[in-house]
Amino acid sequence: MTRVTAQLSVSADGFYAGPRFEGDGNWMDSAESAGFFRVTRWATEVSAWRERQGFTGGEQDTNSDVIAETFEAAGAYVMGRRMADGGEEPWGDQPPFRAPVFVVTHRPRERLLRQGGTSFTFVTDGVASAVEQARAVAGGKNVAVAGGGSLVRQVLKAGLLDELELHVVPVVLGTGLRLFDADLDLAEKEAIELTPTRVIHTPEVTHIRYAVNGRAPLVLDDRGSGGGPTVTR
Amino acid sequence: MTRVTAQLSVSADGFYAGPRFEGDGNWMDSAESAGFFRVTRWATEVSAWRERQGFTGGEQDTNSDVIAETFEAAGAYVMGRRMADGGEEPWGDQPPFRAPVFVVTHRPRERLLRQGGTSFTFVTDGVASAVEQARAVAGGKNVAVAGGGSLVRQVLKAGLLDELELHVVPVVLGTGLRLFDADLDLAEKEAIELTPTRVIHTPEVTHIRYAVNGRAPLVLDDRGSGGGPTVTR
Repeated sequence: MTRVTAQLSVSADGFYAGPRFEGDGNWMDSAESAGFFRVTRWATEVSAWRERQGFTGGEQDTNSDVIAETFEAAGAYVMGRRMADGGEEPWGDQPPFRAPVFVVTHRPRERLLRQGGTSFTFVTDGVASAVEQARAVAGGKNVAVAGGGSLVRQVLKAGLLDELELHVVPVVLGTGLRLFDADLDLAEKEAIELTPTRVIHTPEVTHIRYAVNGRAPLVLDDRGSGGGPTVTR
Repeated sequence: MTRVTAQLSVSADGFYAGPRFEGDGNWMDSAESAGFFRVTRWATEVSAWRERQGFTGGEQDTNSDVIAETFEAAGAYVMGRRMADGGEEPWGDQPPFRAPVFVVTHRPRERLLRQGGTSFTFVTDGVASAVEQARAVAGGKNVAVAGGGSLVRQVLKAGLLDELELHVVPVVLGTGLRLFDADLDLAEKEAIELTPTRVIHTPEVTHIRYAVNGRAPLVLDDRGSGGGPTVTR
C-alpha cells in the first residue's frame, strides 16, 4: 500500500541548512550550503548515494543501506520548486530519482523527461494535488516528499504525511532553516503525535523513523506529582 | 572525573515546554505546562522518578533505568532561578536531588537546607561560578545542569558542557520553549560538533547522549557532487 513519506537530515537543533541564501553570489559558498552540506555529509559519503549521483566509491555501511532502502521504497516523488530549480543543473541528464517527480510550483511549465526513469511534472494546483498525482503512478510504492523542509511541513500540516524519518546529525548549527519553524495550524494545547517505528544509530547520524498518528489534544496529567518543573525535564 | 552534564526532554521539533506562561492564572493549566507534561510524561510514568518524588508505583523498565542512572551519576546540580522558584513548593521538605544544588540568580538569598541531602545555594556571580562551586562538592560525580533550557543553553554557549543527553519524545508541539532558540555566539559557518556516545530507544522516547566536542568551522565539502540540493536532504 502506498504511504506518503518524508525524510530529512537535520542538526541536533533541528536545522536542515544554514540561514537562507539571499545574495547574488554563489549558493555553494553560502552559510546556507555550509549547514546543508554538514547535515547531509553522512549521505554523500556513502556508496548508495554516490551511485545514484553517478559517482563511484563511498562507504558501504549501515548508512548506505538506509539510503538504498529509501530510494528503493519510493515509486514517485513530490518536491518543492526551490529544490527542483536548484537541482536541475547538477542532476543533469540522469537525475538520481529514477521515478516520476511532481514539483509544486506557481509557474506552469512543460513536463521534463530525463534518462533513467526520472520525469519532472510541474503541478500548479497545490500540494494535495501533487501528492495525488504521485500516488497514482507510484505503483504501490511510497510517495516520497523529497523536500525542501517547507514542503515537508506543508504536507504534515495538511495531514497527508504517513511517515517521517529524521536523520539527526550530531552538530548544533545555532541558526538556519528549520523543518519545524512555522505555524502548523495547531490549536492551543494541541500536538501532532508520532510513534517511533525504527531507530538506527551510527557514529555519523541517528535515524529515527516515525509513523504520523495525527493531531491530538495535550492532556494535562500530573500523576499526582503536585506539578512544577523538576530535574527530569 | 567530574563531567558537566545536562539532559532535557524535548519534542521531535525541539521544544521542552509549551509557549511561556505569562498570565496571572495557574501555571498548571497553561499551554506551557501542557507541553512540558507531554515531553516529560515518559519520566513521570517510571518508578525511578516516582521514588525520588516520594510516590510509589510506576513502570520498572528501560526508561526507569535511564532516570535512575541520571540521578545516581549527579554529585551536585546547577539550576536556573525560574526552575528553582517553580519547584520550591512542590518539592517540599525532601527534594528529589539528594545533593547540593546551586541556583543561578540575580537575587542574593540565604542557603536553604532540606532533608535527604538537598541544599539550595544561590549564586549571584554567574553560571561559570555556579558550575565551579558545584564541581568542588561533586565528589568526583557529575555536575548536572538541571535546567531549564535557557540555563543549559548558557552553559553550552560558555563552553562548559561536556555531555548533553536529549530525551526525544515522539510528538510535534509546533510552538513553545526551545532548548536551541537563541544566539549561541556562533560565527558564520561555525557549529558546535557533538559525538553520539549512546542511543537507547523505547516506544515512549529516544535517548541520545552526546559528548560535546566544541566549536568548529563548517567546512564545505561537496565530494565532487556538483552541489545543489538533492533528494537525500
